[in-house]
Amino acid sequence: MADCGEHALIARIKERLSMPSWVVLGPGDDAAAIEPVRGALEVLTTDSQVEGVHFDRRFVPPDAIGHRALAVNLSDLAAMGARPRAALLSLALPASLELTAFDQMLDGFVSLATRYSVALIGGNITSTPGPLVINVTATGTVHRRKILTRAGARAGDEVFVTGTLGDAAAGLLRLQAGQITADDVDAARFVRPDPRVRAGMLLGRNRAASSCMDLSDGLADGVRQIAEASGVGIRLDASAIPVGQALRDDHARNGPDPLDLALRGGDDFELLFTCRPNQAGRLRSVRRHLGDLPITRIGVVTRGRELLVQDGQGVREIPAGYEHFR
Amino acid sequence: MADCGEHALIARIKERLSMPSWVVLGPGDDAAAIEPVRGALEVLTTDSQVEGVHFDRRFVPPDAIGHRALAVNLSDLAAMGARPRAALLSLALPASLELTAFDQMLDGFVSLATRYSVALIGGNITSTPGPLVINVTATGTVHRRKILTRAGARAGDEVFVTGTLGDAAAGLLRLQAGQITADDVDAARFVRPDPRVRAGMLLGRNRAASSCMDLSDGLADGVRQIAEASGVGIRLDASAIPVGQALRDDHARNGPDPLDLALRGGDDFELLFTCRPNQAGRLRSVRRHLGDLPITRIGVVTRGRELLVQDGQGVREIPAGYEHFR
Repeated sequence: MADCGEHALIARIKERLSMPSWVVLGPGDDAAAIEPVRGALEVLTTDSQVEGVHFDRRFVPPDAIGHRALAVNLSDLAAMGARPRAALLSLALPASLELTAFDQMLDGFVSLATRYSVALIGGNITSTPGPLVINVTATGTVHRRKILTRAGARAGDEVFVTGTLGDAAAGLLRLQAGQITADDVDAARFVRPDPRVRAGMLLGRNRAASSCMDLSDGLADGVRQIAEASGVGIRLDASAIPVGQALRDDHARNGPDPLDLALRGGDDFELLFTCRPNQAGRLRSVRRHLGDLPITRIGVVTRGRELLVQDGQGVREIPAGYEHFR
Repeated sequence: MADCGEHALIARIKERLSMPSWVVLGPGDDAAAIEPVRGALEVLTTDSQVEGVHFDRRFVPPDAIGHRALAVNLSDLAAMGARPRAALLSLALPASLELTAFDQMLDGFVSLATRYSVALIGGNITSTPGPLVINVTATGTVHRRKILTRAGARAGDEVFVTGTLGDAAAGLLRLQAGQITADDVDAARFVRPDPRVRAGMLLGRNRAASSCMDLSDGLADGVRQIAEASGVGIRLDASAIPVGQALRDDHARNGPDPLDLALRGGDDFELLFTCRPNQAGRLRSVRRHLGDLPITRIGVVTRGRELLVQDGQGVREIPAGYEHFR
């Protein structure tokens, strides 16, 4: 980036954007200004992607870095049942990043933002002597009575996930081993995850879930978080946990254990949620509107505080999930 | 941070916080949720502090890193005339950062947040193989007709700054030279800048400014930004630019040129604003409410697009300000 000033980089961002009418002031001033949505809560989240921790520039292309940075935040909004609205992009750029890579990173970001009608309203660019860090703050809206949190699960609720689990972790392993490239279909779940924005909004709007979160750090971490926040336990049925066909085939050829990848592998960005018995009708309605995305029952909420998984060999404790600094 | 997990770090943050009633959901879920202020615009800004770029851990103590990271964002909100309200804190922590330093960084952040009634509603923590990066997003509110932008200056307006300029740059030079430490009074303006929150709010509320921005990158950059956004020129009077007494004394002893520090040195976080002739009465009212903080007239807005500074030797062009990647 040695040949391009901060203001010129900001100009490259601005030329890609169009602003909806509720953005009173977009990028270019000291701060952005937007009109709130009357009667709705504002939901805010922030997340960083750090080169060497969350992605490796050797096999994650620049557009995917931009895509991922927004996707992880939209996934957090989805977990609250919120409709995404605006984003702020804060970049710490190493000198080694080329201008074409910068442009592609932006293109990946803006492309996903456009798909979900998210306005990029502001941000910040700085140089760094270290790895690329891309920090995104995303905001959305949700009506107060429709917000989804981690804290509402009760004994007797059923546990569900959207989509399939473990694919992203499997893709990452194969990328790291050089067996596939970012363009390979088996890499897509890790490289360009699709946040479950529509599923989250439908679950919230229909009040079809008693608790919800997104699976950024694996299913084991997810059930632990919901159980702790709700003061309950969870028992999973291993045979019900949905893993992709590629993972099963892989396992048959001495690949990693799909259940292990689902429990401990991160980056799936599926939604984990619980549903009261009396919400079953609402969940059916969500399913009808969702179309192809599977929703699978994988366990039950229990009064006892244990986190258990039942498989052919019996019942055992769920291993601790991935956690930074551990 | 090797001995402490991400969840434990988040717990250390949460124990320092108390939430106002408009925070529906604070840290600990996938996202935060707040009630918007009815009839007000929401103002959002984000800014990163990168070790080795914005601060040096050898002479900026941890509490000051936390303080600065929030201060630069509150300064941006002040420049819009906004009342600060909430913040999100996103940390990329190197393994070398000790837990006591983490705690002190938080204390510096929370202490400044408390002073300005800013609620820390959420954030994110990740490890990094690189330097410490602390990214803050701050939100505030302002009424639509009272928002300050960079774009309102017109020929004939007068140009003002709050406080004194150059002190932060002078302090940084002396810190880098090992002449003073972070506890020295001459280091304070760089180490723990005080954002002009109250001045910004008063200027906005009283509609006493036609344009405004904060001086994070020096006065030369500031006048350039306001002139470009407003489509005008600016002529500064060098002898009127307020520099601190220490700077003048320093210069008398062959120290750096105070005018140069004011123009090109960053980190002052004073407000630069313009005022229409018919806003003079409103500005007097702001001055009365502000108390000790000086407001100094330093130039005029011109129809011609030049950026000029007039001193004893005559009139010359204002040098380009500091910019990342240049």
